[in-house]
This record gives sequence, C-alpha cells and structure tokens, in this order.
Amino acid sequence: MKRIDFQTEPSRYRHWRLTFDGSVATLTMDVDPDGSLFEGCELKLNSYDLGVDIELADAVQRLRFEHPEVRTVVLRSGKEGVFCAGANIRMLGRASHGHKVNFCKFTNETRLAIEDASANSGQRWLAAVSGSAAGGGYELAVAAEHIMLIDDRRSGVALPEMPLLAVLPATGGLTRLTDKRMVRRDLADVFCSTEEGVRGRRAVEWRLVDEVVPPSAWEAKLHERALQLAALSDRPADTRGISLTPLQRVFGDDTIVYSHVRVTLDRAQRRANLTVIGPQGDLPGDLAGVHAAGAAFWPLVMARELDDAILHLRLNEPELGLVVLRSEGDPAEVLASDELLEVHKDDWLVREIRLYLKRVLKRIDLTSRSLIALIEPGSCFAGTLAELLFAADRSVMFAGVRDGDNHGPASLHLSDMNFGAYPMGNGLTRLATRFLGEPDSFAEARARTGDTLSADDAEAMGLVTFALDESDWVDEVRLMLEERASFSPDALTAMEANLRFAGPETMETRIFGRLTAWQNWIFQRPNAAGEEGSLKRYGSGQRPKFDPQRV
Amino acid sequence: MKRIDFQTEPSRYRHWRLTFDGSVATLTMDVDPDGSLFEGCELKLNSYDLGVDIELADAVQRLRFEHPEVRTVVLRSGKEGVFCAGANIRMLGRASHGHKVNFCKFTNETRLAIEDASANSGQRWLAAVSGSAAGGGYELAVAAEHIMLIDDRRSGVALPEMPLLAVLPATGGLTRLTDKRMVRRDLADVFCSTEEGVRGRRAVEWRLVDEVVPPSAWEAKLHERALQLAALSDRPADTRGISLTPLQRVFGDDTIVYSHVRVTLDRAQRRANLTVIGPQGDLPGDLAGVHAAGAAFWPLVMARELDDAILHLRLNEPELGLVVLRSEGDPAEVLASDELLEVHKDDWLVREIRLYLKRVLKRIDLTSRSLIALIEPGSCFAGTLAELLFAADRSVMFAGVRDGDNHGPASLHLSDMNFGAYPMGNGLTRLATRFLGEPDSFAEARARTGDTLSADDAEAMGLVTFALDESDWVDEVRLMLEERASFSPDALTAMEANLRFAGPETMETRIFGRLTAWQNWIFQRPNAAGEEGSLKRYGSGQRPKFDPQRV
Repeated sequence: MKRIDFQTEPSRYRHWRLTFDGSVATLTMDVDPDGSLFEGCELKLNSYDLGVDIELADAVQRLRFEHPEVRTVVLRSGKEGVFCAGANIRMLGRASHGHKVNFCKFTNETRLAIEDASANSGQRWLAAVSGSAAGGGYELAVAAEHIMLIDDRRSGVALPEMPLLAVLPATGGLTRLTDKRMVRRDLADVFCSTEEGVRGRRAVEWRLVDEVVPPSAWEAKLHERALQLAALSDRPADTRGISLTPLQRVFGDDTIVYSHVRVTLDRAQRRANLTVIGPQGDLPGDLAGVHAAGAAFWPLVMARELDDAILHLRLNEPELGLVVLRSEGDPAEVLASDELLEVHKDDWLVREIRLYLKRVLKRIDLTSRSLIALIEPGSCFAGTLAELLFAADRSVMFAGVRDGDNHGPASLHLSDMNFGAYPMGNGLTRLATRFLGEPDSFAEARARTGDTLSADDAEAMGLVTFALDESDWVDEVRLMLEERASFSPDALTAMEANLRFAGPETMETRIFGRLTAWQNWIFQRPNAAGEEGSLKRYGSGQRPKFDPQRV
Repeated sequence: MKRIDFQTEPSRYRHWRLTFDGSVATLTMDVDPDGSLFEGCELKLNSYDLGVDIELADAVQRLRFEHPEVRTVVLRSGKEGVFCAGANIRMLGRASHGHKVNFCKFTNETRLAIEDASANSGQRWLAAVSGSAAGGGYELAVAAEHIMLIDDRRSGVALPEMPLLAVLPATGGLTRLTDKRMVRRDLADVFCSTEEGVRGRRAVEWRLVDEVVPPSAWEAKLHERALQLAALSDRPADTRGISLTPLQRVFGDDTIVYSHVRVTLDRAQRRANLTVIGPQGDLPGDLAGVHAAGAAFWPLVMARELDDAILHLRLNEPELGLVVLRSEGDPAEVLASDELLEVHKDDWLVREIRLYLKRVLKRIDLTSRSLIALIEPGSCFAGTLAELLFAADRSVMFAGVRDGDNHGPASLHLSDMNFGAYPMGNGLTRLATRFLGEPDSFAEARARTGDTLSADDAEAMGLVTFALDESDWVDEVRLMLEERASFSPDALTAMEANLRFAGPETMETRIFGRLTAWQNWIFQRPNAAGEEGSLKRYGSGQRPKFDPQRV
C-alpha cells in the first residue's frame, strides 16, 4: 500500500464540500465511489474508508482555525436517499488487522474532535439526516450536538453491524447509545439487532434522534435550528481566521524532517526516534503577534507536525513498536510560549491552539506504541512539552553533564499548563492521573511550578521513572530499549491500554477501552474475519458460517 | 471433557486446607499437582486451574455462611518457597478459547467475592506472602485487604505475564495495580515488564504490598495483624453458622432439575430455558425461623441453585447461546420473602443472603449469553425476581389471560429490594442503570413499589421491552428467539458486554470490560495462541515467534 498521507486541504477534497453562509457552514458528504485508498473498493452510498475520514478531519480542523465566524456546522449528504452507509465493508474485509484497528481509532478521534468543537469551541454541529444513516453513518450523526431526521417514510437511522456483519458499531456507536443518548438498554438491544433500523416518531421516542421534521418544513427548520445553535456561541463576531498553511516536511527513507519535529526510523531496532524542537527565538511578544504569526506560531506548528508524525507512524510504520521521545531547545522559550497560551487563553485563536494541543496529546496517549521519553542535556521538557514525559510509559533522565558536551545538565520544568489545559480522555490531567495514589506528590509538583528541576529532584518527586548518571546511561538505556522491542507487540498494546488510563472512565475512554477492545477481539474471530466469516462473505451471495460456541 | 461441577465441600478439597482459631481462619493453598481438570497438566508450584478455583470459591462462601465467628481470613501457602505461581500455563495452552475466557471470568468473580467479604461482610482477608507470588498468585494476594510480604531476600511479588507469556495479568491484575493499589503508571509499567518482580522494601515503596516483615518476626506479626483486622469486624460474637447442605439436583440429558430452578436444554434451537420457582408456602414467619430454615430458606436455596445453573451453562454448554428466563409461583410469596430480607437486613445471616443474591445477579449480568425474560401468566417476577428482568437483554410480557389457562394475567411487582440491595458492578441498581436517561421513569417506578403492574402498565413504565397479547405472543416470541440464535455468537457477546453496562465504570466493571476484553483479544492473537505463539511454546525450550506488527 502506498504511504497514507494525513495532509490535505479543501481544494483537494474528493468526498466533501464546504460552503459558507455567515455563521453557518455546511459540510456536504458526497463520497467519490472511485476515490478509495484501496484499489477495487467502490465507495458506494457514501460509504467511507480512511481517506474519506482524513478529509473530514481536515475540515473539522480548518473550520475551527480558518473560520472563527462559523458557529454552526450543518452536516448533510449530497446523495439522494442516503445520508451515509458507514465504513465500506469490502475495505474492512480486505484491510489488515492493524489497518482496521487504526482506521477505527482515527475515525473515533475525528468524531471526538467534532464533539470537542461543539463543547469547547463554540462551533456546534448539527446533523441533518435525510436518507438512511446506517452504521458508521449513524455514528457520524451521533457525534453532532443535535440530530434532525426527515420524516419521509424512507429516511431512518440504524446500527446494523451486528445482524448484518457480525461486528460492532465501534466508532463509538454502542457507547454513545448508552452514555450520550442514554437509550434504554433493552431498546438499544432491539435497535442494534434490527438491520432496517428505526424511522420517524419512534426514533425520537427511543432517544435516537432529537427531532423528526416533515419534508415540507425540512429546509426552513434546518435553517432555524442552525441559527438557534449559532446564537449560543461565544466565537468572535468580526475577526479573520488564520490559514493552516501546508506543513514543511521531507520524507527520506529513514527520516521525516519537519520544521520543529524530526523523526528517524531505526528499523533494525524496530523503533522511531522522535525529537521535538523548541521555539528558536522567534516567539511573538503579544497577542497581535500571535495572530500575525498564525500557523507559524510555535505551539501550533509543533502540534501540527507532531500530530502528522504520530499518524504517519501509526498507519505507515506498523513494525516500529517503540517511539523514543526527545526534545531539543531552550526550556525558557517553551515556558515563554506557555505564558502566551496562559495569559491569552480567552482569545479565540489561543483557545483553539490549546484545544488542539489537548487533542494531539490525547492522540499520543492512544497510540499503540511503547513510548519512552529520554530527558538529556540540551532538552527542553518544560510545561507543554513536559506533557510528553507524562504521556510516556516510562521516562529516564540524565543526571549531571555529559562528558565533552557543552550543554548544562538536563532540567525539567512545570508550568500552569500541566495543571488543567490538557486533560486526558479520563478527564484528569496527566499529573493528576500519575499521582492518583500520591496526593502529596501532586501537591509538591504544583508547589514547584516554575522551578528548574534537576534529575535528582525529578526522580525524588516522582516526575520521571529513573535518573541515571553518565556511567549507567548508555548501557541501561540501550538494554531497556532492546528489551522493549523483544516483547510481544500485542501484549504491550494491551498492557499499555490498561496502565495508561488509571482512574475514572468517561464516554471517551469507554469508547477506546471497552468498545474498541471488544471490536478488536471480534476482528480476530473467525466468525467475522475468517474465510467463511461475515466480512469475507459480505456481498458474495454466500451466507457466513458461524461457530455456535459462546465464550 | 467431563462435566465441570461447581459443587464441592471442604472434606473433598484437594488443594486447600481450612483451619480455625477463634476469630481467625487460615486458608492454606497447597495444590495437588495431580489434581488438574485437564489430563496431563501438572499443577506445579501452587499453580491453578478452574478446579482449584472452584474449591477456593466454595471456601469463600462457606466461611461467610458457616462461620459467623470468623473475622479475619489468613491466606497462605502450604508450599516452601512459593506462595502461588498463578494460572497453570500448560492448561492455558491447551484449553479452548471459551474455556480460557470463562476460567478467567470465574476466577475474577472469586477475587471480587473475597473483596466483597472484606468490604461488606466484616470478614477481612489478609494475604501472608512467603515465597514467590507470581502472576495470578500476586493477583490473588491483591484481592486481600492487607498484604504482608516476608523479607527473606527470596520472596517477592511479580506480574511476569507480559514478558514471560505475552499475555496480560488479567485476573484483575492490571486494574488493581492502577485502581486499588494506585501504583504510579510508569512503575507499574516497569513492574509488569520484569519477570523476576519486586522484593523487600521496594515492594512497599511502589505500593505493591502493605508491609514487609523480617522472618524472625513473621508469625508474631501475622498473628497481630490478623487480630487487628478482626477487631474491626461487626460480625456477631456468639452465634452459630448455618450449614450449606448439598444442593438437590438431577442432571438428565437435556434437563437439570433443582428444588427451585428448572433448566431444559433445547439443543436444536441452541437455547436453555431456565425457570425459577417461587417459595411454596414454606416461608418462615420471623428471624428465628429464617435461621432455623438455614440453607432451606427460599432466597438462599434459590440463589445457590441459580448460581450453579448459570455456571454449569457457562462452562459445560457453550453452544447454548440464549437463556430464556421464566418464573413460576405466587408473587405475594416472593414479596413476603423480600419483606423478611428487608426487615432483618441487619442480621448477619440475612446480610449474607442479600450479599450473595447481589453476587449471583452480577454473575448473570456477566454471563456471555443472550438473556431474554418472558413474563407469562403464572409467573412471579416480583422484587428480587424482577431483577432477572432488569438483568435481561430484553423482556416480553404476556398481556391478558391465556386461553384455557386458569392463571390470571401476568403481573410485575417492585419491592424495596429493587432500589438498593443489588447494585450492579457499576455501583448502580439495575433500575437506575436502565433509566439513566429517564429520571421520570425511575421516579415513577419508585412510586409504584408494591403495586400490581399489568403488562400494559409495565410497558408504559418502561419496565419491560414489549407487551404482547395472545394473538401475537406465539409467533413473535418464536421469531425473536430464532433470530437471536441466528446471529454471530461473538458479535452478541461483545454487543451485550457494551449495552449491559451503561453509565459509570468501577474497578470491577473495568476488570470485566477493559482488561478482560483486551485479554480475550490477546487470547486470539497468533503471538499468544498460535502454533508458534507464547502459550504453545512455553516450556518447550523453543522461543515463541512474534509478528512484529503493532495494531
């Protein structure tokens, strides 16, 4: 398979159209059947694959940064009689296990980004369901704040995955039924067992949609609702967005070089080395400067590059099971950047940058690769970048100076950004999650915000896993990385998915924990993935053959 | 494989010894290597299989009912140098997927029953770890309220599953590390990657055990701690327990007949019909009568029989994917039984019966079979038995009387027991979970406690899924049951595991949701379960071969 590229822009969209009318944008899904990432998979009936979702994710992102004036996003279909048929089944039947799992993960992240826009960004999504919204199609609608369904005796919503395909509605479908729509469990059971789904009044009674509207009133009511939602927004009235300019990046055989992120791929050792580079003396001095810098403002460009690099590794480099995180730069500059983000947090653009950093860090939490952070002389793990340490499975810090290196000793710095700006999916900050059992350690970390912390400080405070001096560093780090690469990739995936998310569960963590884990299981079971299973036999005219044993 | 029997008693134990000294009982694990359920699996080093855990579950149960005087249970090993080596690997390599999954589920339920005794029954468990507690061995210790570790330079705790076997510590291990012990996530990562585990002081510092004790002080300290825990108990001082007499049951080819539960197995339709029979005019009139009845008191005998039937179906009848729940009897008698359980809830025995009913109902929630309840004329779904409806995936109620049947119309009755006595694993009652999105429905149900509810009432109040009159009943019920049996068993398992547990997650639900789902996935992955995988190659001298791809 060709490299999957997560960068796109509206002029290159094949599957979506964006139009604007004052405070209301309309995003129309009109999938090009011939535009699949997989050769020979025809994307009929607005069914989608990862390529379609990459465009959707881009639209979600640009609407927020490039269109501060947009307060409501209307999601609708450009095809007659169908809203969206969900993930393309032929693609699911053909894709590798790893691709399927990462495809679902990315689509889930996009749905959550839509909800994040509605909840935190003053940009509410309104799903206008005309035609059939089935499976992932209904799951897409359920990500919206409000769902309208046209009452034309044909249009309806359905989650037919279980009866039709012997898999789950796993782009959040089951979890949003119980946790967001709070559908009664026996009605949810009936709904999810019914291929044809539910239409009209009953869809409202069962809490599956928010309202049904007769065809004669459809466009007027849609317009009215869009304006009502827009009226709730706190987005600024008269301002211009920034342009998310194309990323600077160069792919080599074993390198990806961005302006502030550098990745080297060590295939022999099965690991990627990812280095984040701090601001280089070019931070703006005030809010006007932040707006003028736009996409070049360090936290934003760094976040976009980091996001792209992580997604690239997930989908295109499945054999690199370990990501070693490093940073380079001046901690004072990272702290100065954090200061801008904190002082101006009520500004719409700064808010978007903070929310985007939150999402990128969550993407890292959810990345199924072992993450080991190395804090070395010359690094700048401060504030926002220190979150990378706390996202890592382990962190090791170099104590003292390196022989022949003119950098001073490595230091670690906390800022206000470590105490609320970037909650994990579980609703807690990474530090609060880390110190669930150690309230004193949490209080000490808070008290020492702004201090320059040495390796010994950081180890004593529980902020890093180990501090090692030069005599131990080379061998111990090498052994640790080699040992990690020797373990079963699956066991690591599952272990990390448990240990990273201590404490409370939310709808979001339940989607990636309970729901996704069960779907991944099904994607391995012969009843779905086997030669006689449902995914392989779908559309062949042959019925799947099921092993009747329950487990 | 021979039928697995969940009934045993201390005189038949092969793997455990129970001794008593006033308020302290000692349960000694001393597994008979030749006593495996699987031929040719030698249970070395106190490793266990399901048969060992069936005895443990029996001991947990009898300690509570037969020994009101016991306030502390000391868990220790009868073998030199090893506490417990965890689940037997050869057994895991050989067992079917379904057996592995159900074995883990049962062991998890037993660990939770231990925690329930410590938390709610005034019978605290104390793990005295001398020797190595590895994998399931440490998971067993972690179920105790307090863990003592002998500091003899050899004894230690470990979760070596990931590095050694490429599977997870999935009898709650990972979840109890993060949620119960609140071990810092990076230390948990190191601990779970280290075959040899952690000993001595560090085990306390990392919160893995509660204290280490030098060998010279071991027995004295153990005695002291046991008495300290006993002093916290509210169990009665001078009373006698009841005897859990052997269940009356007769296994036929397609039937299991107990005194108050009847199961018929319809193999052609792949379903089990399970009927619970209400009290038959023999309820005691007061608390003394309850104690005198002992194991014959209806709620207790019914619970024990229901528990046994469910466990039998889980392990011995994997192809029966659907359990149809019915009841027979007089609702007034069930309500009278509930009244006894409510009025005397502070009595130690009544408390045990209520707690046991809670656990049996949770066992039903967690049973990976579709559950459909049919409420027909002559049924007694009232109070405690109405919980079966609320545990079911769907419920259908017969409206009106049956032609030629001399029973009156079916009725449904709520009692106080539906509003707190039997929380699900998520901490909410089944009605609160059912009505998460409908607070008014919840309030109405509460207000109509004690009323005789007709099928139409029950449907309107959302207490049953559908009401059907005689003209529709036969065909619609038949079609529903046949349709259910036609779906993929795996897809149903996963769907039900999501829809049954709406709302909050607890350590308990996370064990069965997140942790178990990931372990089930691993148990399907070639890296663990394949011919060259870790479970098959363990002990063969050959290293497993891993596919390096991450998913």
